[in-house]
Amino acid sequence: MKIIEIQEKTFSISSEIKNAYISFAKMDCSVVALKSDVKINGEHIVGYGFHSNGRYAVSELLKKRFIPRLNEAEEKDLINDEGTNFSPEKIWKVLMQNEKPGGHGERSTAVGTIDMAVWDLVSKIEQVPLYEHLAKKYGNGKHTNKIFVYAAGGYYYPGKDIPMLLDEMKSYLDLGFTTVKMKIGGVPLKEDLKRIEGVLKLVGDGNNLCVDANGRFDLATAIEYGKAMEPYNLKWYEEAGDPLDYELNSELSKSYKNPLATGENLFSVQDSRNLIRYGGMRKEIDWLQFDCSLSYGLVEYLKTLKVMKDYNWSSTRVIPHGGHQLSCNIAAGLDLGGNEIYPSLFQPFGGFPDSSNVENSYVTFPEFIGMGYEKKVKLNDLLKKLFN
Amino acid sequence: MKIIEIQEKTFSISSEIKNAYISFAKMDCSVVALKSDVKINGEHIVGYGFHSNGRYAVSELLKKRFIPRLNEAEEKDLINDEGTNFSPEKIWKVLMQNEKPGGHGERSTAVGTIDMAVWDLVSKIEQVPLYEHLAKKYGNGKHTNKIFVYAAGGYYYPGKDIPMLLDEMKSYLDLGFTTVKMKIGGVPLKEDLKRIEGVLKLVGDGNNLCVDANGRFDLATAIEYGKAMEPYNLKWYEEAGDPLDYELNSELSKSYKNPLATGENLFSVQDSRNLIRYGGMRKEIDWLQFDCSLSYGLVEYLKTLKVMKDYNWSSTRVIPHGGHQLSCNIAAGLDLGGNEIYPSLFQPFGGFPDSSNVENSYVTFPEFIGMGYEKKVKLNDLLKKLFN
Repeated sequence: MKIIEIQEKTFSISSEIKNAYISFAKMDCSVVALKSDVKINGEHIVGYGFHSNGRYAVSELLKKRFIPRLNEAEEKDLINDEGTNFSPEKIWKVLMQNEKPGGHGERSTAVGTIDMAVWDLVSKIEQVPLYEHLAKKYGNGKHTNKIFVYAAGGYYYPGKDIPMLLDEMKSYLDLGFTTVKMKIGGVPLKEDLKRIEGVLKLVGDGNNLCVDANGRFDLATAIEYGKAMEPYNLKWYEEAGDPLDYELNSELSKSYKNPLATGENLFSVQDSRNLIRYGGMRKEIDWLQFDCSLSYGLVEYLKTLKVMKDYNWSSTRVIPHGGHQLSCNIAAGLDLGGNEIYPSLFQPFGGFPDSSNVENSYVTFPEFIGMGYEKKVKLNDLLKKLFN
Repeated sequence: MKIIEIQEKTFSISSEIKNAYISFAKMDCSVVALKSDVKINGEHIVGYGFHSNGRYAVSELLKKRFIPRLNEAEEKDLINDEGTNFSPEKIWKVLMQNEKPGGHGERSTAVGTIDMAVWDLVSKIEQVPLYEHLAKKYGNGKHTNKIFVYAAGGYYYPGKDIPMLLDEMKSYLDLGFTTVKMKIGGVPLKEDLKRIEGVLKLVGDGNNLCVDANGRFDLATAIEYGKAMEPYNLKWYEEAGDPLDYELNSELSKSYKNPLATGENLFSVQDSRNLIRYGGMRKEIDWLQFDCSLSYGLVEYLKTLKVMKDYNWSSTRVIPHGGHQLSCNIAAGLDLGGNEIYPSLFQPFGGFPDSSNVENSYVTFPEFIGMGYEKKVKLNDLLKKLFN
């Protein structure tokens, strides 16, 4: 059982949006395809992977380090002991050869991109949806084709005023979402409060609205925003301070009584564990948002889920960042709290199969095999071109 | 005042050595050169930068993100308010545009590489050695041309036995070093203890020997090694566990009474601060080894030194990883505890000017301008070729 061809390509996912920290005008994304010698119905099985938005393409890392390691590996180091399928864990070890510990950025995206393709490949060879494979092999056996999803957007962009923000949010409600997320911290507090109050009127209840500061605030500002927003009883207040400033987060959690959320910019099991150890996150109400595609993939994510268990955190407290189908599958197969979705952004990569049904912020997937890309027409068209 | 040409190139620094974690067989390094329109004696002033060993070249990150940002910046965003020189801090802000917080790896090397070139350029325009510029502008005004250095080596490589290890260490003593460092953790404890005892006989005193596990141990093994090594009274026991496992480090510090050292794989001020907050490091005896070239350069390092001050750590507790001349200059200008040197490895990048004098593990620099590269013939030859 072999990988006979590997392709990688960079795609632009540029847009005019801004969060409180960065502009997305030059954002791009790496995509990889792993073609195996396994044939089903006469066709070579191919696994596809890409990474979430917010970090840049990692073409050179893929081409110079990670793909060569895969190409140079012996067959036995890539497949399971029974020889019935590829082994994500063994492939991960091959990828991480000669990488020093620490320094978790960029390469974590490159490894996550390949790892996503590996899981697509493995579950296609099993001829089941990935979530079913995960539930059986790594979970409690139970899986679902219906998960909680929320619509993330509400970015800042040139000329966007409150009516435009409300139009955007209304479009998400029209799609079947009841929970939405908007950015804060890019304008003065007073202005942000007006934006929040506008959206609140639309979504009806604080529990339908999340706000995201993208790590911009110092402690004083984080607390000031918290005090001002507390009466709204929001679903969560996300990434108030720097993702690695666990002390800030811990202090904020003492002052802000409603749910906090963070973790999308922690790219290793060690960093995630530090958040749990030091970040003051409350396992009853707070949310963890680790994104496997930016953090060495699902093989590493399984270690992170294990750490959560060791610290008595329920897997349902995780709603990942990134809006990709790997997180949809993990949520459906390993009992996460749901997934982020960007209905109007980062297409065709984000989201779920085209014929999925969204109602009351729950998505029900149609039948699919593997990751489900083939049921998403525009994404499938793009991926198929990797071998042309 | 403008940067008129930028070059970047990747050089191999491959060798057969291994530490407890990785092989260096495919190790490489990015080098950049910034040519300015400032002329002295009819020559354009050029700043050169590269990064430390242990992380791979970052050519694409330089070419696709960081160098374009520099090229696209307006002049006023690159020079100081007086217009008399380039501003490392302003250039750093330009480089870090549209980079999300967190995920400190690879890009931290790319920014560190450019930042090194900027400091070389700035101090050449001032026509002083960088350490003098640093002391005057960022330090207490006092500088020295003599700093503590130790010889790092003692790697594992194919066929290397204890006599060969002793030959290597003897060669360092012959060069004027009295303090040396060797790797541990790549073979069983019993074998490592024999290697350590062999070297101890040669260097005479535990205070002349450091050992480095390169982050390989779990807590039990770290403590086991600590118990076995405590009687030797070593100068330090380095990176016992994963660089981000602050709890392991903190637990080890309760069990191991002699000095610990760590920090070379923490690539941001936030990570360094977390080590100080949570790692149990003892400001009276332990050593911090942050390496600016891997962690966004000296602009970020100045923030790290500020954090240390805020936590009542003396700058003399820092002896950086990496063995490059930027750390030599920082040590000499900002009162660090010294610098690491690899006399037999990673050449021609590491070390200090050729005519430097090493005695009792203190190096005295000859006169130089800027970083001092021009007084290191082989390095200078390599750098000069960047514009051919």
